[in-house]
Amino acid sequence: MGDGPGCFIVFEGIEGAGKSTQLRHLARELERRGHAVVATLEPGGTPFGRHLRGLVMEPREDPPTPMTELLLYLADRAQHLDQVIRPALARGAVVLCDRFSGSTLAYQGHGRGLDLKRVVALDAAVRQGLEPDLTLLLDCDVERGLARATGDDRMQREKLAFHRRVQEGFHSLAAGDPRWKTVSTEAPAGAVAQAILAAAETVLPPCPSRKS
Amino acid sequence: MGDGPGCFIVFEGIEGAGKSTQLRHLARELERRGHAVVATLEPGGTPFGRHLRGLVMEPREDPPTPMTELLLYLADRAQHLDQVIRPALARGAVVLCDRFSGSTLAYQGHGRGLDLKRVVALDAAVRQGLEPDLTLLLDCDVERGLARATGDDRMQREKLAFHRRVQEGFHSLAAGDPRWKTVSTEAPAGAVAQAILAAAETVLPPCPSRKS
Repeated sequence: MGDGPGCFIVFEGIEGAGKSTQLRHLARELERRGHAVVATLEPGGTPFGRHLRGLVMEPREDPPTPMTELLLYLADRAQHLDQVIRPALARGAVVLCDRFSGSTLAYQGHGRGLDLKRVVALDAAVRQGLEPDLTLLLDCDVERGLARATGDDRMQREKLAFHRRVQEGFHSLAAGDPRWKTVSTEAPAGAVAQAILAAAETVLPPCPSRKS
Repeated sequence: MGDGPGCFIVFEGIEGAGKSTQLRHLARELERRGHAVVATLEPGGTPFGRHLRGLVMEPREDPPTPMTELLLYLADRAQHLDQVIRPALARGAVVLCDRFSGSTLAYQGHGRGLDLKRVVALDAAVRQGLEPDLTLLLDCDVERGLARATGDDRMQREKLAFHRRVQEGFHSLAAGDPRWKTVSTEAPAGAVAQAILAAAETVLPPCPSRKS
């Protein structure tokens, strides 16, 4: 349900699930095939969004409340949709995005405990009908993921129980929507990449100029 | 419609209308009478909100889109409601706030041109039923106000036509709601303060310990 002729593929999952690695891998493969690819992320996919990313994710003594946190992620999304995602889809690009609305539901809804209907309604007001064509849930054991995660931001500092709620949130989102595809990243990297490529092929637009 | 036994009075108006001066004046008078007064402002009424205020109001080369700007003001409001306004009302204080939802409607709705129903709905989702007992619209000529305004932020740098739309927005908000009271600040300062005090007296809780 992207805008225009492009295609919108989102990578979701807990910290350390392997999203950014697999996103880069898919981007390279699609570029090799001749697709125009825009690889981006939330929060922080725009110049203004990078200020927001710092503000919302840095550990601090005066942290945002859960509702404030939600609104900041949505502010980042509004900027990203206007400046990056919608323009890229309109010119026919394949947009690969590291986190989107699924993370908002999983982290601010399931993780922080904000009312899910309220989170869904606010996110919908910001998206204005734009939805990913495919959401890939990269799934791995929570403790293994956290051990692999390299950052030290406000989310990564949360307790294990928080990340388990987030994981359960992702599972219930994937179970309830046929446009989500779950890929275990416990398998060897090549097999994971293959499964992701196969899922992507179900939604890709025709290659403008096949190079291989 | 405040939470608890306190009372919530908001000052609205264009730049340079005299809000902060009159707010301080009313605060002093109410304290003299024995009220517990919390004088606060949006954006920036909390420690986290002060970071947000800088982010949203500083002139910059990568400014937020209108929707992003709206969500940042609402993020500031969510934090302010949780940490300052609701706790103060619950303990019986008179909360005097420089700007609130009226400014959101006037600046992001009428000024920026965002759909008014959408702005109203998003603001309502953040307020969760809390509304000012009284909103004082301090009204003055737009050009005279701008000439008096001392700052140099993103709003103050906007063109005269923007501030006229904001002014018209405030007028239509005040016309449509009996809990708004318009006070012209073109009158002598003492008369303005007297009109504001008279309006406030219609909503104040009983003085806990009258000192005068």
